[in-house]
Amino acid sequence: MKTYLDCYPCLMRQALQASRFANLSESAQQSILKSVMESLSELPEGTSPPVIAQLIHRIVRAESGHNDPYRAVKITSTQNALNLYDRLRIQIDEAIDPIDLAIRLSIAGNIIDFGISDHYDLEDSIHRVMTKPLAVNDIENLKTRLKTIKSLLYLGDNSGETVFDRLLIETLVKHYQLPVTYVVRGSATINDVTYLEATEAGLDKVCSEIIDNGSDAPGTLLDDCSSDFVTRFKHAELIIAKGQGNFESLSEVDAPLFFLLQAKCNVIANELGVQEFDLIVKGPKG
Amino acid sequence: MKTYLDCYPCLMRQALQASRFANLSESAQQSILKSVMESLSELPEGTSPPVIAQLIHRIVRAESGHNDPYRAVKITSTQNALNLYDRLRIQIDEAIDPIDLAIRLSIAGNIIDFGISDHYDLEDSIHRVMTKPLAVNDIENLKTRLKTIKSLLYLGDNSGETVFDRLLIETLVKHYQLPVTYVVRGSATINDVTYLEATEAGLDKVCSEIIDNGSDAPGTLLDDCSSDFVTRFKHAELIIAKGQGNFESLSEVDAPLFFLLQAKCNVIANELGVQEFDLIVKGPKG
Repeated sequence: MKTYLDCYPCLMRQALQASRFANLSESAQQSILKSVMESLSELPEGTSPPVIAQLIHRIVRAESGHNDPYRAVKITSTQNALNLYDRLRIQIDEAIDPIDLAIRLSIAGNIIDFGISDHYDLEDSIHRVMTKPLAVNDIENLKTRLKTIKSLLYLGDNSGETVFDRLLIETLVKHYQLPVTYVVRGSATINDVTYLEATEAGLDKVCSEIIDNGSDAPGTLLDDCSSDFVTRFKHAELIIAKGQGNFESLSEVDAPLFFLLQAKCNVIANELGVQEFDLIVKGPKG
Repeated sequence: MKTYLDCYPCLMRQALQASRFANLSESAQQSILKSVMESLSELPEGTSPPVIAQLIHRIVRAESGHNDPYRAVKITSTQNALNLYDRLRIQIDEAIDPIDLAIRLSIAGNIIDFGISDHYDLEDSIHRVMTKPLAVNDIENLKTRLKTIKSLLYLGDNSGETVFDRLLIETLVKHYQLPVTYVVRGSATINDVTYLEATEAGLDKVCSEIIDNGSDAPGTLLDDCSSDFVTRFKHAELIIAKGQGNFESLSEVDAPLFFLLQAKCNVIANELGVQEFDLIVKGPKG
C-alpha cells in the first residue's frame, strides 16, 4: 500500500511521539521533525508507510542512543493483556464457536498500536469484536483452509496484542493440531513485538517456534527481511498477518495471506472500503 | 503564543483539508504539503500558529484560484446555528442568569472550527456548556467590567459561531445598553467570519457596527491588521476575543482582553493548564 497524503501529518505525529518516548530534548525533537519532513518531501512514488516509519524510528533511536524507547509501554501493554488472559481463555473455551471468538479477540488486541495513538481502551475493543459484525469477513474461508494445512505462519504485530495472538494460537493448536510459527520483528520499532515480548506473552509455550524477520520495520517489508524468513514466507501454506503495518507492507504481495486487523485510521479504512475501527478478516482474492 | 511542535502535524492536516476544500488535484495537494513543510522547517522562533495558517490558506487560495474554499461550509454552519436561534433565545431570556448562559452558549458555538476538525457536534457542545463548570472562569470579573464601560469591541472567530455571538451580544445590549462593535477578518481564511457571514448571522441587526481587521490571518495579528482596526483595538475599554486563533495571536498582548473559547487541542489546553475541550473565560491578569 502506498503512503497517502493523509499519512504525512500522521507520520509527523508519530515521529514526535517517538522522540518524546525517547526523552529527546525539544530541539532534538524539532530536528527529527525536520528530517521527517525532508524524507516526506522526497518520497519515491509508491513507498509504503512502514518504510517511512522504519526510517523515523531509526533516526529516533540513533539520536537518543535508546535502542528501544517503547520498552516500558510494551511491558505494561503485555501485563494489561495478561491480566485478561484467564477470563478470555474461559470465554473462548465455553463459546459455541471458539475459533470464531478467538479470531475476533485476536483482532481486539490489535487496538494496542502506539503507531496510531498512545492510549487505547482494551475493554471497549473486546466489547466491539464481540458485538459488531466484521466489515470484511473471510472467517469461513480461513477456517476451511486451516483444516487442510500442515503448518501455519503467524506474523505478529504489537506487544500486548501478543496475548490475544496466544489465545488464538492455543485455540488453533487445540482444534486443528497445527504447529504454528510466530514471527516477530528483527529488532525494536514502535511498540512492535520482538522475541523478548513474544516470550513475555507466553507465546513460546504455545508456538512450535518463534522466529524473527530480520527487519526493524513496523511491518513486513520482504526486501528488508532476512533470506531465512523470506524463504519461510514463500513456502508457507497459510499466513496470518496481524495489524495495519503488515497489511500496509503485504497487501500487494501474492501469497496465501489472511489479514486480521482493525482499520484504525481513515487511510486504511478507505483502502479497505470500510469505516474507521471496522474489523477485518481479509483472505486472498478468489 | 508560539507554535509548538505538536502544531506541525496539525498544520499539515489543515493544509491537506484546505487543499481538498479547494478541489485541488492530488499532485497540487502534495505540492502544498511540501510548501508547508518547507515553511515549518524554516520557522522563526516564536512564530504563532495563525501566521503559518495564514500562509497555508494564502497558498491554497492562490494555487486553486478559489478565493474562499470554505464558503459552502460557512453557509451551512450559519444555517445550522440559525436553526437553533429561537430555542436558545428563549432559554437565555428565561434563565436565572441570562448573561452567564449567553456567555456559555457563545463558547458552545466555538466548536464550529474547521481549523481543528471538519465535523462538529453542536448539540453536544451546547450540552457541555450548560452542564460543565468552566475550567477558567472570569465571568464575574467580566460582568463587573461590562457595567463600567461605554462600548465593547467583540472579535469574532468562526462562521456559525457568529449566531451564538449574536445571542450574547443581544443579551449584553439588553442588560447593559452597550453599543457593540463586531470585528470580522479582512478576507476569507478557513471558515472564519468575514463581513458577509456576519450579516448572514444577523449580527448587523444587533451590533452598532461591523468592522473588519484588514487581515486574512485566522486570528488577530496586530502587525498584519489595518491601522484603523489597530487604533480601535488600542483604545478599546474592553475586548471580547472569541476562539483559539484570537487567543493564539493575542495571548501575550497587553490589553483589556477577555478570551472566550473551548480548548479544542492539547496544545491550547496545556498552554492554559486545562483539559482538552474545557471551557474558558479568561480575563486580564490582576
